[in-house]
Amino acid sequence: MKKSASAEHNHPLFRQVYGFLVNRMERGEWGAHDKLPSIRLLAEELKVHRLTVFKAYRMLTEDGKVYVKDKSGYYVSPVSRLPSIEEGAAVSAYALTNPLSDIQRVPTKYQFSQALIDPGLLPNLFLSDYVKKVFDLYPKVMGTYSSVQGDEELRETLSRHFRKKHRLQLSSEELLITSGAQQAINLIARIVLGPMDTVLVERPTYSVAMDVFRREGARLIPVEITPTGYDLEKVEALMKKHKPRMFYINPTHHNPTGYTVPVQQRKLLVELAERYRCLLVEDDPFRDMYFEEEPPPPFFAYDTEGWVIYISSFSKYVAPGLRICAVACRYPFMERLITAKSLADNGTPLLNQKIFLHYYTSARLQNHLGKLRIALQVHKEIVEEELAATGWEWTPPQGGLNLWVKLPDHLSVDRLFASSMAQSIAFVPGELFDPLGEMKSRIRISYSFASEGVLREGIQRLIAIAREL
Amino acid sequence: MKKSASAEHNHPLFRQVYGFLVNRMERGEWGAHDKLPSIRLLAEELKVHRLTVFKAYRMLTEDGKVYVKDKSGYYVSPVSRLPSIEEGAAVSAYALTNPLSDIQRVPTKYQFSQALIDPGLLPNLFLSDYVKKVFDLYPKVMGTYSSVQGDEELRETLSRHFRKKHRLQLSSEELLITSGAQQAINLIARIVLGPMDTVLVERPTYSVAMDVFRREGARLIPVEITPTGYDLEKVEALMKKHKPRMFYINPTHHNPTGYTVPVQQRKLLVELAERYRCLLVEDDPFRDMYFEEEPPPPFFAYDTEGWVIYISSFSKYVAPGLRICAVACRYPFMERLITAKSLADNGTPLLNQKIFLHYYTSARLQNHLGKLRIALQVHKEIVEEELAATGWEWTPPQGGLNLWVKLPDHLSVDRLFASSMAQSIAFVPGELFDPLGEMKSRIRISYSFASEGVLREGIQRLIAIAREL
Repeated sequence: MKKSASAEHNHPLFRQVYGFLVNRMERGEWGAHDKLPSIRLLAEELKVHRLTVFKAYRMLTEDGKVYVKDKSGYYVSPVSRLPSIEEGAAVSAYALTNPLSDIQRVPTKYQFSQALIDPGLLPNLFLSDYVKKVFDLYPKVMGTYSSVQGDEELRETLSRHFRKKHRLQLSSEELLITSGAQQAINLIARIVLGPMDTVLVERPTYSVAMDVFRREGARLIPVEITPTGYDLEKVEALMKKHKPRMFYINPTHHNPTGYTVPVQQRKLLVELAERYRCLLVEDDPFRDMYFEEEPPPPFFAYDTEGWVIYISSFSKYVAPGLRICAVACRYPFMERLITAKSLADNGTPLLNQKIFLHYYTSARLQNHLGKLRIALQVHKEIVEEELAATGWEWTPPQGGLNLWVKLPDHLSVDRLFASSMAQSIAFVPGELFDPLGEMKSRIRISYSFASEGVLREGIQRLIAIAREL
Repeated sequence: MKKSASAEHNHPLFRQVYGFLVNRMERGEWGAHDKLPSIRLLAEELKVHRLTVFKAYRMLTEDGKVYVKDKSGYYVSPVSRLPSIEEGAAVSAYALTNPLSDIQRVPTKYQFSQALIDPGLLPNLFLSDYVKKVFDLYPKVMGTYSSVQGDEELRETLSRHFRKKHRLQLSSEELLITSGAQQAINLIARIVLGPMDTVLVERPTYSVAMDVFRREGARLIPVEITPTGYDLEKVEALMKKHKPRMFYINPTHHNPTGYTVPVQQRKLLVELAERYRCLLVEDDPFRDMYFEEEPPPPFFAYDTEGWVIYISSFSKYVAPGLRICAVACRYPFMERLITAKSLADNGTPLLNQKIFLHYYTSARLQNHLGKLRIALQVHKEIVEEELAATGWEWTPPQGGLNLWVKLPDHLSVDRLFASSMAQSIAFVPGELFDPLGEMKSRIRISYSFASEGVLREGIQRLIAIAREL
């Protein structure tokens, strides 16, 4: 292989050879006690110096992945093969898992595992009007790609909204449109995280975010979130000690707990982030779904030095099916995010952005939003009414889509989950949200997706199952 | 940090510490001659054994990234900092670049750098009818998520299409819907490639695919593509020698050359892929855009053992703005792709899939497609007419969207490119498509995006600029 054809790497060659060998062993291409290629052969195959292969083999031997026998060569150690996807245990660089998505993939009658809004609560009839409007205004929208960063008109409108609503300094150049918050988290992780980087995450937190961070090789450090927010002294100690690259937060009607971090902590945490150069990644999809009082401004509003990235996915209630999300951040993060977005999918579909824009700026949306808040509160109260007599515990949320319920100690969540799924009732076991994998007496009940009747019936059945256990 | 909170890794701890340190140096957080943290401090910070840090420092010293001074500690070597994004040279794990996207981002009057179809050639007036139909049929489409794998109805329809058209054995479970071919390539690279893996790529090839493969740490090995296809003996020799994990091909109206690999080579290459366990990743966006004769069946049609992944993005002419692409592949790749998709964006928007489905299955599309083929041929001929007198060379393509032009040796592409961009004419320099970074006398002219008048005018201006140089 010619040199110019090979990828440029930051890593020394012998580490790459090491990765290459580990990779093959993990895939089971070489099993326990299989003889590995000789140094000479592998050096030829990979077009590297024999010393490089020798170094890689030495590393493998030191790690116990490989053993040497009678000077005849290198052999795979019996312990070296790591669990595969099917065995589902370790999150390796190649074995990706997403247990939350696995639960949600199962069709169930009583669907309480999705933190989504019942499509029946969305103004479906009106939405098609906006689509027609979009085609009148932009007849060629189906043949046109958006710019990678996102439609200029949409970014202009959203930056104006943020400036007005939270008095931010924000230009359209500081917004990126992504296909949902999930993509935003993935892109941020790709540009910010490297191996051994530490990430602070709330405990509990959104489980798929943890899957994404681990996929990038990061180590997660939990920060407890309570009804009164974080223990900032502890956060500061963790920042000092671990120099985390980022703190992933969902501070407003938090998923899964429903807690909201109080206003006085917001400014202080931004100051800590600036002092310790720890990026705050603020995921904020539930802000507008409050019940009584509007929540405090986002952390991003207190940021003056560019240490907050703000993921604003109001698409949960505007039109979740469009998958439109806005990410606000400063240079140089924005430049890197745009490149990552271009490699990921080259830009979010223009049609979706334009429909979103026109519905979002309509007077109808505000009207709808008022009704939706009431409907969600009614949903929440249905669950609370049914659970009132059970002795199960929760902190009544002030907004959001979920109830974070503590079951009595004698009740096994594993057994409850298995029996419920068998009766077509889905919820999410609490341990999935816990970076420590504990919280085994907690469950998340999403009250937003099922219609009122189905919700009440399903919760009654869930309680009945629990009584039987 | 508690043990259970840390990510599970396949890599030994000291390699992770090494990666962590390299990462910080690359980011410029520690500059040349800066003192690195002591072994004791770093061990405490990262919660690892001191010996682990010591091993990492020893590796860094061996690599010349770090030097030891008077026993007082470890210091950053002056050569250790690699070029950053701004300097644009090396593709590091963190510094992503996409020069093709950079060129296309610049707004130009004569846009010949986009292999896209002029939106004026799409049946825009009719497309809005299908959108209305979708809202009538699925009133809640805007509030509904697609499954991660893609809408069942769409996958059912497309698998039927493939079965009928190419007599494939293919079920809907073997199709994944992605947001464009770009996302498909990215997801495949993530699940298939690891560090030091080799990838065969055509020379020339789609530049962004190379960017994606390099981002995963792969090494690229070029396979020349000519008007008569590949040299299969050479391909076999490369497979034997390098054991490539995949061969990324675009064998039908190839981008940028327009070549089509002949039918007799297709079965043979699939056999080679099976023999050498090298995945063929077949990117096939231009199949239906032929001028006279329909091209041979895809490689996927010859695959019996699951060694071809087929990326079928007919959305280029159906409705590029929808960003709908189908990936066909067999177990176990499909399982892994679905998980990668769930972490990437949790599923392509349902609205886009449903619109695509209804337009795609309409009689109108076939009618439109016939007209489109003629229009594209006319576009191509306009460029050929204008270039006829220049002495520039090209192989007349039988389909696709591009002309791959060889300029006379005395003409500098760099200078032509700079002067053209200054006059609002965009094309792509050939070297961007070359895994070896050569091909400096080639340019790609996409004739599909500009309207006929603009196309002729722009080509005339381009020729005039070339004459001046």
